[in-house]
Amino acid sequence: MKYNCKKTRSVFNIKGRTIGDGQFMVIAGPCSVESQEQILDIAREVSTSGATVLRGSAFKPRTSPYDFQGMGAEGLKFLQLAANKHNLLCISEVVNTEDVALVAEYVDILQVGSRNMHNFSLLKAVGNARKPVLLKRGFAATYKEFLLAAEYILGHGNNEVILCERGIRTFETHTRNTLDIAAVPILRELTHLPIIVDPSHGTGLRNIVAPMALAAMAVQADGIMVEVHTTPDESITDAQQAISPAMFATMMDGLNKMAAVVNVQL
Amino acid sequence: MKYNCKKTRSVFNIKGRTIGDGQFMVIAGPCSVESQEQILDIAREVSTSGATVLRGSAFKPRTSPYDFQGMGAEGLKFLQLAANKHNLLCISEVVNTEDVALVAEYVDILQVGSRNMHNFSLLKAVGNARKPVLLKRGFAATYKEFLLAAEYILGHGNNEVILCERGIRTFETHTRNTLDIAAVPILRELTHLPIIVDPSHGTGLRNIVAPMALAAMAVQADGIMVEVHTTPDESITDAQQAISPAMFATMMDGLNKMAAVVNVQL
Amino acid sequence: MKYNCKKTRSVFNIKGRTIGDGQFMVIAGPCSVESQEQILDIAREVSTSGATVLRGSAFKPRTSPYDFQGMGAEGLKFLQLAANKHNLLCISEVVNTEDVALVAEYVDILQVGSRNMHNFSLLKAVGNARKPVLLKRGFAATYKEFLLAAEYILGHGNNEVILCERGIRTFETHTRNTLDIAAVPILRELTHLPIIVDPSHGTGLRNIVAPMALAAMAVQADGIMVEVHTTPDESITDAQQAISPAMFATMMDGLNKMAAVVNVQL
Amino acid sequence: MKYNCKKTRSVFNIKGRTIGDGQFMVIAGPCSVESQEQILDIAREVSTSGATVLRGSAFKPRTSPYDFQGMGAEGLKFLQLAANKHNLLCISEVVNTEDVALVAEYVDILQVGSRNMHNFSLLKAVGNARKPVLLKRGFAATYKEFLLAAEYILGHGNNEVILCERGIRTFETHTRNTLDIAAVPILRELTHLPIIVDPSHGTGLRNIVAPMALAAMAVQADGIMVEVHTTPDESITDAQQAISPAMFATMMDGLNKMAAVVNVQL
Repeated sequence: MKYNCKKTRSVFNIKGRTIGDGQFMVIAGPCSVESQEQILDIAREVSTSGATVLRGSAFKPRTSPYDFQGMGAEGLKFLQLAANKHNLLCISEVVNTEDVALVAEYVDILQVGSRNMHNFSLLKAVGNARKPVLLKRGFAATYKEFLLAAEYILGHGNNEVILCERGIRTFETHTRNTLDIAAVPILRELTHLPIIVDPSHGTGLRNIVAPMALAAMAVQADGIMVEVHTTPDESITDAQQAISPAMFATMMDGLNKMAAVVNVQL
Repeated sequence: MKYNCKKTRSVFNIKGRTIGDGQFMVIAGPCSVESQEQILDIAREVSTSGATVLRGSAFKPRTSPYDFQGMGAEGLKFLQLAANKHNLLCISEVVNTEDVALVAEYVDILQVGSRNMHNFSLLKAVGNARKPVLLKRGFAATYKEFLLAAEYILGHGNNEVILCERGIRTFETHTRNTLDIAAVPILRELTHLPIIVDPSHGTGLRNIVAPMALAAMAVQADGIMVEVHTTPDESITDAQQAISPAMFATMMDGLNKMAAVVNVQL
Repeated sequence: MKYNCKKTRSVFNIKGRTIGDGQFMVIAGPCSVESQEQILDIAREVSTSGATVLRGSAFKPRTSPYDFQGMGAEGLKFLQLAANKHNLLCISEVVNTEDVALVAEYVDILQVGSRNMHNFSLLKAVGNARKPVLLKRGFAATYKEFLLAAEYILGHGNNEVILCERGIRTFETHTRNTLDIAAVPILRELTHLPIIVDPSHGTGLRNIVAPMALAAMAVQADGIMVEVHTTPDESITDAQQAISPAMFATMMDGLNKMAAVVNVQL
Repeated sequence: MKYNCKKTRSVFNIKGRTIGDGQFMVIAGPCSVESQEQILDIAREVSTSGATVLRGSAFKPRTSPYDFQGMGAEGLKFLQLAANKHNLLCISEVVNTEDVALVAEYVDILQVGSRNMHNFSLLKAVGNARKPVLLKRGFAATYKEFLLAAEYILGHGNNEVILCERGIRTFETHTRNTLDIAAVPILRELTHLPIIVDPSHGTGLRNIVAPMALAAMAVQADGIMVEVHTTPDESITDAQQAISPAMFATMMDGLNKMAAVVNVQL
């Protein structure tokens, strides 16, 4: 590893907001941008409760070609609009090299999803982009493979990579994935990059999101990414794991209480 | 499930000490009892830092017949002696039906290990014992199989079963196991039994034990079980995962700070 | 490994029948002995088509205490009776140390099941028995752990251990297990013990049993173990994976054709 | 599934050679094209022993950015040259959408690798290409996800998709992957597409390649893909799994013997 082995922990400043250095980043929003009204509603809700980054996919990497593939460019516009209105940063997934420039135009952080962690062309493309990248761990990737994927981005000159543990595939079927909380302290030993946790994809179960967010903070994660929907059961994608604004607010209360004792700021 | 579906959470009282009901149980001690001096030293150390139960195996279920198999009955005597001297409860593993009575004579809690979770004869035998049982999750057992194993014990008339998440086997080899922290909130939905976490076997990495213990408390586990050794690197068994008394003390400080904000007592 | 590293491949003679040395052993019969009539019917059918060993459990290690636990000693009598009548050897599972002598009285081969591969007391007990032992691979056991389990038996003086690959637990849920056919050639490099394959538990799917039996022969397995039931869908246990006598006969035809080209005898 | 559910099995004709319909396709060659001389030598050897398709990567999807990334376009030229000279078809991997046209210019079959099975942009791009596609199963993909990935290609108008089982990631570390031979009969029930097996990547162990190739034929796979190198230990990539021309010839002998009894033609 050439770029992961820096001695001091990385701290990024994204439009005046800090990631790393004890600042706990809360990324929240719907799985998919579904309409202007939807994303504006959710942005208002999560902003009120303390989120700092709005998430929402416009291009979806779907296992089935028959599932909703996202709103595309229009979705990105709605996302940016909602983020700006509520003073949030925004993040959205990029699923192919051709779209990197387009997505980068609208968002503050580019997301590379779990299924694309080994899409080396895409890694190089976001490595050439001038926007921070949130790289999700492949659902069957070892720590080493995860860091080598980051190495592709770093090696192309983009230093602002945020790692995201989002659960791995195991024999257990009760949960969507097994969220590997230990990845946080282990990756903190192996790399200087910030590490956040996605308890929504990591469990696939709405009721488990809040406790796992607390666990993430307890192990010194640099933030979380959660799916919030004003009417979770009606979410077009990933309905089972989206939490309501009320659940989000309660979770934020818990995180705020815990922040003091684990020396992080929200 | 006949016995796991009780509506109210179980609370056990073991010789005046509570398990469940917001009381966080800390079980600590060496992997194996190695000598009277060793277990007395460790008992003093962990007691000073706030442990309430002393662990130490006298009968070891070893993957290889050529590895140390434990001190046997003599080890149990040393364990009990050390626990009594330092006002601790004690727990030790029982690996076959013939030894249940012997082990039960010396310990306050009988432990059934991960490799024996599907040893139905042993489950029935400890189900007939009049001592609480700590049942570890099989390293490849689903939640459902774990609860059905508990059902064997409960169905034989022993109501005092404590579940222990201790990591599952996955593709990741950096850690000994993948500690499934989500098991705690999920099992809390599925059963009334107390659930504790073993971050030592769950990770196999000394440096990760403390953060994972905090994660366990953050998700409302009813306690933890950790391996402590006065000279960890010289531990006959599981040397890589044992923490020193100093690391244990620091971990307890962290747990004490967190306890207040997550409404548990240590 | 002390006992697995012999230079020449082991060949056992069980009541005049050879296992190893190019002789392909076909073990067939119901998952559970259900009645005298049932086991007699199945014994006649499988014997006619060329099986040499009759299987049938009388003691079942069941994940749930509420599932059928087997007929016990009476089942063993029926099994022995049926085997004798149709000139077959017989095999049945032993699930605890107390029953080793009883089961050994009735059967020609003692079976240790997947869930008991790490039940070291049982391994030692069958190591002391004077009957060949068929040891199934734990569903989450590595090759090394599998061989170390055999080492427990061999080390107690019982040289006649037959290994059985029966599928491992993976993320795939379409099958009951992932049958690891490569285990056969790999174990042939690591040990002198005979290795057979169980395509019934290994897949859990009736239609896949015959092709996987052929695959087992193609990689030089020393035999197979399959579940056969006269009315598969009415099998009390494991109904989905039992094949009918007609399917068994067709499978045997295929194996007989292949035997010549891969230098084995049926 | 819209396109996988055709009633009759697909048969493709690629430049006069049949895939499917009982014709067993043997794809052989080096992991990477290393030089003109190397690929010519290997082409001659595998052609002599009966291979019909020459493999060799010019673009490598490498987990580490510091590993050899392939010869690029020059490698494709050498591959085509060697294939033409020895009357073989040729296949090479395409790793990003931009290169589809380039690779398609030189090869007869486009390969999509395991790490790109969920690269939906690439799937669409090869779906639009007018060349047959060999799609490898993601190393952590379920059967259903594998077929849905094929559905992306089929849905873009390319009917000539060949599926390739190449091993899945499990807890076992002795092998590079666990080769899921059962995938062949199971996928034959779920789709009409031809299914081949890659025992080289599927095991990562040279000595296991031949037996697993036989197992693939035994379960009615439509072919195999194996790595052959004239000096295997000097192979730049995947040296441990490459077999020598002599081992390849011996394997082909075995396959030829077996072909008759399982009703396939080589």
